[in-house]
Amino acid sequence: MKKRLKELAEYVGGTAVGDDEVEISGVAAIEVARPGEITFIAQPKYLPKLAETKASAVIVSKEISSSPKPLLCVSNPYLAFAKILALFSQKPYQPKGIDSHAWVSPSVQLGQEITIYPFVFIGDHCRIGDRVTIFPGVYVGENSSIGEESVLYSNVSIYPETVIGKRVILHSGVVVGADGFGYVKEGKKNVKIPQVGKVEIEDDVEIGANTTIDRATLGQTIIRRGVKIDNLVQVAHNVVIGEDSIIVAQVGIAGSTKIGSNVILAGQAGVADHIEIGDNVMVGAQSGVGHDLASNQAYSGSPAFPHREWLRASTAFPKLPEMRKALRAIEGRLKKIEEALLSEGKEK
Amino acid sequence: MKKRLKELAEYVGGTAVGDDEVEISGVAAIEVARPGEITFIAQPKYLPKLAETKASAVIVSKEISSSPKPLLCVSNPYLAFAKILALFSQKPYQPKGIDSHAWVSPSVQLGQEITIYPFVFIGDHCRIGDRVTIFPGVYVGENSSIGEESVLYSNVSIYPETVIGKRVILHSGVVVGADGFGYVKEGKKNVKIPQVGKVEIEDDVEIGANTTIDRATLGQTIIRRGVKIDNLVQVAHNVVIGEDSIIVAQVGIAGSTKIGSNVILAGQAGVADHIEIGDNVMVGAQSGVGHDLASNQAYSGSPAFPHREWLRASTAFPKLPEMRKALRAIEGRLKKIEEALLSEGKEK
Amino acid sequence: MKKRLKELAEYVGGTAVGDDEVEISGVAAIEVARPGEITFIAQPKYLPKLAETKASAVIVSKEISSSPKPLLCVSNPYLAFAKILALFSQKPYQPKGIDSHAWVSPSVQLGQEITIYPFVFIGDHCRIGDRVTIFPGVYVGENSSIGEESVLYSNVSIYPETVIGKRVILHSGVVVGADGFGYVKEGKKNVKIPQVGKVEIEDDVEIGANTTIDRATLGQTIIRRGVKIDNLVQVAHNVVIGEDSIIVAQVGIAGSTKIGSNVILAGQAGVADHIEIGDNVMVGAQSGVGHDLASNQAYSGSPAFPHREWLRASTAFPKLPEMRKALRAIEGRLKKIEEALLSEGKEK
Repeated sequence: MKKRLKELAEYVGGTAVGDDEVEISGVAAIEVARPGEITFIAQPKYLPKLAETKASAVIVSKEISSSPKPLLCVSNPYLAFAKILALFSQKPYQPKGIDSHAWVSPSVQLGQEITIYPFVFIGDHCRIGDRVTIFPGVYVGENSSIGEESVLYSNVSIYPETVIGKRVILHSGVVVGADGFGYVKEGKKNVKIPQVGKVEIEDDVEIGANTTIDRATLGQTIIRRGVKIDNLVQVAHNVVIGEDSIIVAQVGIAGSTKIGSNVILAGQAGVADHIEIGDNVMVGAQSGVGHDLASNQAYSGSPAFPHREWLRASTAFPKLPEMRKALRAIEGRLKKIEEALLSEGKEK
Repeated sequence: MKKRLKELAEYVGGTAVGDDEVEISGVAAIEVARPGEITFIAQPKYLPKLAETKASAVIVSKEISSSPKPLLCVSNPYLAFAKILALFSQKPYQPKGIDSHAWVSPSVQLGQEITIYPFVFIGDHCRIGDRVTIFPGVYVGENSSIGEESVLYSNVSIYPETVIGKRVILHSGVVVGADGFGYVKEGKKNVKIPQVGKVEIEDDVEIGANTTIDRATLGQTIIRRGVKIDNLVQVAHNVVIGEDSIIVAQVGIAGSTKIGSNVILAGQAGVADHIEIGDNVMVGAQSGVGHDLASNQAYSGSPAFPHREWLRASTAFPKLPEMRKALRAIEGRLKKIEEALLSEGKEK
Repeated sequence: MKKRLKELAEYVGGTAVGDDEVEISGVAAIEVARPGEITFIAQPKYLPKLAETKASAVIVSKEISSSPKPLLCVSNPYLAFAKILALFSQKPYQPKGIDSHAWVSPSVQLGQEITIYPFVFIGDHCRIGDRVTIFPGVYVGENSSIGEESVLYSNVSIYPETVIGKRVILHSGVVVGADGFGYVKEGKKNVKIPQVGKVEIEDDVEIGANTTIDRATLGQTIIRRGVKIDNLVQVAHNVVIGEDSIIVAQVGIAGSTKIGSNVILAGQAGVADHIEIGDNVMVGAQSGVGHDLASNQAYSGSPAFPHREWLRASTAFPKLPEMRKALRAIEGRLKKIEEALLSEGKEK
């Protein structure tokens, strides 16, 4: 596929500067781009690379107005890059049908133009939407439903009764609907609390490789529309994650916690059970959230507190030994003064 | 299934208060329970909900003796809830036999009333106990044994020579018996230490989705009776976890470490190698254990120290910048005093 | 297999001391070794066990020169142990061919003496090298290549276009080449950045169970020769890990970060995106690396700083409440002195 620069400008709602007839056939990083490709500069500090790149055009911020290269000026270069990359990389969907080496229950309700690879198992009474793709080794337990155009990569496991929306992407090894981790002690013995709830994953969610989303004890674990979850994340029973939130790799969210919408939990953060996190909250990497967090703020640390205060406390932390030493020195000096004053007092 | 309240009271060893003939057909959370269902209140702060629930009966602590609703009074409401939920939710086991799309070595020794789904692979000389269920995509390496009534969910991997007890539950994606992480440097090169030991998982263990339990270098990695492990936990080679211990999600336990019985390791905690943790120890979330821990105590922090001290230190941590500022101010005041005293001394 | 002690000494380049004709048929840990077996002592503190072991010979450091037992004296006992254990434990490779229950595209280019188990899927145009072993449930996406003598354990997922070198070991549940975690906000909506790059894993890499290695956005994620990665590790898009580095369990490495060669990242450590870590760096367990790290140093803490300083700061941390108390006491004493001096001044 080839597109003229002016066509791309129109496609992303930007302005072409310079030769807007130049033909673009692909996207590449600025250092390796070749003639015929478009590249992008998302941060001003990389602007000097404009002169060096072999790309035929460069997506830049609309503040930039002149350059030796043809430019595509937009308000958000990274967003324009994402859209143009999608334009050049996405192949049209071609349904492959149901492979004869798959095992699909006769009671499954199948949509149009489906792709089911070998060694897929789909249990009784499932509903599979139009243009769904299911890669090898996927297990879908009975009474589950998968919305149209969703993709389940290889070796995904979906426990029974799970509801998955439209255009959902589940990467390899994702497990949805395993039992929540619930026991109650009877003496020293751990008695299992049956996990009879479900999981619902709404539309446009993407979940990274080997992430686990547990089914609810009673009720539902819910991943709302547009949530993006990275690899190796743990989402416990009865958790609700609000719309458009971003959960980075290896985060753990404990039972019954409610995450607001448009939240970011950075890598390896942990959130305790029965917590509420407000909308638009940012939680720093490796933070530990042990109590409710108010909306529209950033928090870091374990236990977490406001991010700016954490930055200051973290900067001070390596100085602790020095502070202890200073404290001891001060006590010595203070003692001397007190003794001096005391003897002075006696002298008088 | 329907049970009268008095039958349920008898079943869990409690006392029915009010209309003990009321019929119960299910269990639900207090906010959503409908007539015909029983619900529970495990914590006194939720008692005001007693008046509002539509449930036909409520499981409460035996201290509660009157209510507009029929009550089931017990010493541990949460335990009674777990047992009654199990009563209503557990379906009788129905063996499905061995699906023709599974691959089971002819040398496998098979118990009675087994369920083996499609795309399961069971290697040579394995022993599969009575009423074992193995879901699609499970791999069981040669010479392994699986005790009666155990359940292996989809895409579980069991390496050769693994011993799994009775009534064990392994959730999807669990890997048991992969090589321990052992190398020795020869110059800069990492030379692999063969991992020729095994894994033994005793009776009544449950292991969460995508958790990994490595085989021993020599000898055995052992998960003792009644241990419950959550999702995405790492158990390294030669670890031993004592009876009834609880290991929460994303915990990591390094090589050769011995965990006592009835221990709780909270989420994302890490334990270094060659450590011993005593019985009845609690380790807080995200803690890092770098040395042996004595029994019957709680620890937190990274590195971990007694939990109560950690609570105080954590509370003080955000005050560090303020403390540094105070230190500097004190030094200034001290200097002034010293100078004043010095000049005073000279004056005399 | 049996070997005389003098043969083993020659095999590992060491010296036999005592009866060098003694026959050895296996390797065991010092407490459980039986006659006919060899064991090892890697640390001087375990030397007293020399007298008690039932082993027929003991691998020790070359400083040890006499003992009641036959000895194998070497410069690195642990390395000699690894090599002798390999000698006794490794079975000769026996190809099993391609099982009829596997699905291998006719366009796949197959090497000699391959082993492909049931329920393996290999997509179009893949290349599988000589003596490769692929266990049940593995998915290999189209256009991927796997170098000779590599082993893919059960339920591994390899996305399309992945390049895997020779003698690579991928443990069960490993996912290579899933989409990197890249989105750009358009309003509150997360727009997916297509991940059209690849993953290359060079020769002699070993990757632990359920670890995930994401494909690059553009370009490549690269795991260099000899790298060893433990279980449940997250390697994000465009990361490069240098030769012979060791990445311990549950580590997370964020996007575009470059790790030098011969680095050790200890368990549960996290590294932020776009970071450079120099050669021969050690990062302590649970550390959080937020900026570049210079070569040849050890770092710990979250955020990380030099390890020795971290040790001191961590030791001081539990003293924080006590330090606050001391500060308050000092302020009180200081105030008294100042008041005394002031009233004295007034008196004059």
